[in-house]
Amino acid sequence: MMIQGLIRRRFWPKPSSSPFQPLNGYRTQSPIPILGPDLPDIWDSRNASPLLLHRRRPSPATDVAGDSVAKVIDGKSIAEGLRSEIAEEVRKMRHSTGNVPGLAVIMVGKRRDSQSYVRFKTMACHEVGINSHLVQLPEDCVDDEVVCVVSKFNSDPSVHGILVQLPLPQCELSFLSYKQHMMEEKILSAISLEKDVDGFHPMNMGNLALMGREPLFIPCAAMACIELLLRSDVEIMGKRAVVIGRSKVVGLPTSLLLQRHHATVSIVHALTKNPEEITREADIVVSAAGVTNLVHSNWLKPRAVVIDVGTNPIEDPSCEYGYRLTGDVCYEEVLEVASAITPVPGGVGPVTIAMLLSNTLDSAKRAYGFN
Amino acid sequence: MMIQGLIRRRFWPKPSSSPFQPLNGYRTQSPIPILGPDLPDIWDSRNASPLLLHRRRPSPATDVAGDSVAKVIDGKSIAEGLRSEIAEEVRKMRHSTGNVPGLAVIMVGKRRDSQSYVRFKTMACHEVGINSHLVQLPEDCVDDEVVCVVSKFNSDPSVHGILVQLPLPQCELSFLSYKQHMMEEKILSAISLEKDVDGFHPMNMGNLALMGREPLFIPCAAMACIELLLRSDVEIMGKRAVVIGRSKVVGLPTSLLLQRHHATVSIVHALTKNPEEITREADIVVSAAGVTNLVHSNWLKPRAVVIDVGTNPIEDPSCEYGYRLTGDVCYEEVLEVASAITPVPGGVGPVTIAMLLSNTLDSAKRAYGFN
Repeated sequence: MMIQGLIRRRFWPKPSSSPFQPLNGYRTQSPIPILGPDLPDIWDSRNASPLLLHRRRPSPATDVAGDSVAKVIDGKSIAEGLRSEIAEEVRKMRHSTGNVPGLAVIMVGKRRDSQSYVRFKTMACHEVGINSHLVQLPEDCVDDEVVCVVSKFNSDPSVHGILVQLPLPQCELSFLSYKQHMMEEKILSAISLEKDVDGFHPMNMGNLALMGREPLFIPCAAMACIELLLRSDVEIMGKRAVVIGRSKVVGLPTSLLLQRHHATVSIVHALTKNPEEITREADIVVSAAGVTNLVHSNWLKPRAVVIDVGTNPIEDPSCEYGYRLTGDVCYEEVLEVASAITPVPGGVGPVTIAMLLSNTLDSAKRAYGFN
Repeated sequence: MMIQGLIRRRFWPKPSSSPFQPLNGYRTQSPIPILGPDLPDIWDSRNASPLLLHRRRPSPATDVAGDSVAKVIDGKSIAEGLRSEIAEEVRKMRHSTGNVPGLAVIMVGKRRDSQSYVRFKTMACHEVGINSHLVQLPEDCVDDEVVCVVSKFNSDPSVHGILVQLPLPQCELSFLSYKQHMMEEKILSAISLEKDVDGFHPMNMGNLALMGREPLFIPCAAMACIELLLRSDVEIMGKRAVVIGRSKVVGLPTSLLLQRHHATVSIVHALTKNPEEITREADIVVSAAGVTNLVHSNWLKPRAVVIDVGTNPIEDPSCEYGYRLTGDVCYEEVLEVASAITPVPGGVGPVTIAMLLSNTLDSAKRAYGFN
């Protein structure tokens, strides 16, 4: 069954002989494949011998297709499958416990792209049977008002996930970046660890970084990248991976998750010199810089796998909302070089939303003790 | 004055207008240089233009000396300087508050190398005027006994730092790695966040990973690596750095801290293919694999800076304790290629211990509200 497939792939239980409770007092399940297998770091002692160094040859790029044009990884259809598995789980939960998962979405201001994302999220909730609660606050509201709304949802047992749509509006012209950052930190810190479905809480990020530990939630876009790679049968272990961008939303958690899957990861950012020299070494390139047309075909090794997390709004009056989305990657050009690529739109985006639903479902399962 | 130099270099206060309390209820200071400067990720838009890609050239290795033989970074003398600065701070604290910092060290079993490290730590405490409390538990004690000792120190107001010397003894032959890991996790999780001077708590690790956030403590060896680079005037920002090893003790926090200093970081581990191809690209190589003679001269770009965190005990009956320590790096060979290198012993080790004293002092300062 698809549902069981999802659960098996993403979770397996801890040995029942485990003599104590894991973090946070309740038994969590061990999300092994999405977190990567636990492997001890046993170095090949031959590494220490200079004689063998030159026998090795660079491994070929991860190959997912035999064609000369890249396979397009269809995030839309993968997300559709995930949503239908989640909907089935939600039905089972309602049948068994009388409850369904609940997600609270808090939006401050009226950023056009944020409005679209929030719309997609609440629509997806509706589709799978998750209750969504949308609170829209004015652009000029103070941080305490947002914290107050967060606190209300923290103590609402019908809400299992809380997210504050980022970025927050810029609050003042002076000392902008610092105040902006502190406001965001204060608001995100107010979200209960058990309802942090975006996975941005430092405790969740720390548990993602620490091999062998298990975060309650992993940021959705990072999960989406790995899910797309796994579902496309891309080998991650031992491969060279480059993550472009280091935001807490995508770059950081994706680099940590790729490490948990035992890729050799390099993190490229805006202060990196000659980023294209590093990306050209990679079997897997995840781009989350937020810069249109950043990644050209000459940034890539032939047959690399490219995951484009960029969602850059471009003015386009011919489109429904006056703009369209582009990724970070020069799609047409890269199609000729890569072995697989995610399109924008229709790649990482819909799977990220499916992961949000999945995180909310997992949270509700923990709350109701439903497996 | 040296003391003020230390404090200025490692801390600067938050703007007093900051309208709310940071994490954990009390005002922390902002450890900017050791955490690296906060910089927004503004991508050079020329990156997006393919025309400019080929104008760039690889940057030369970070240069700390004009000689053809590497400068030896003298960790012993840097640590001596740090200890005398810390001792002065401790004297001031005692004079002003009547209290001194206290460090509790818990050692399980009788590993010979662990015994040496614990001896160095308690001796260093003594030298700077920090009270140390050593508890030695038998190899076969159960995890609850260790947790019980940790809890006692958690509630002791004269103790500001608690560390459990790792690795813990292996407790059973069957299912070893998992039980070992769970025991370690349980014991380390019992340490109060405010006394976690080793910085292994997921909350501290998450706050280290998240740009702009401030951990209460950073793991000592990672701080030592950065301190050695900073004190040797090695530029980190924009440089290629490779960290060999990904343990929570060294590799992980060092890679996160180098990122906060805006290096472009690659993490090499035991499952990395052709690690020498990656290290050869690096301006800075930090090796923490725990493998003697892993890093040969042909693993390095000429003029690279090499920080050797390896402390591998080698049987040697001629030495005082029957063994001597070697690093991961073929020292003599690498001396001819690198621009700077830390020796083993006398490199990272003593500075790591100084960082433990510094973390304990910082913790006591927070506890007594002493600045």
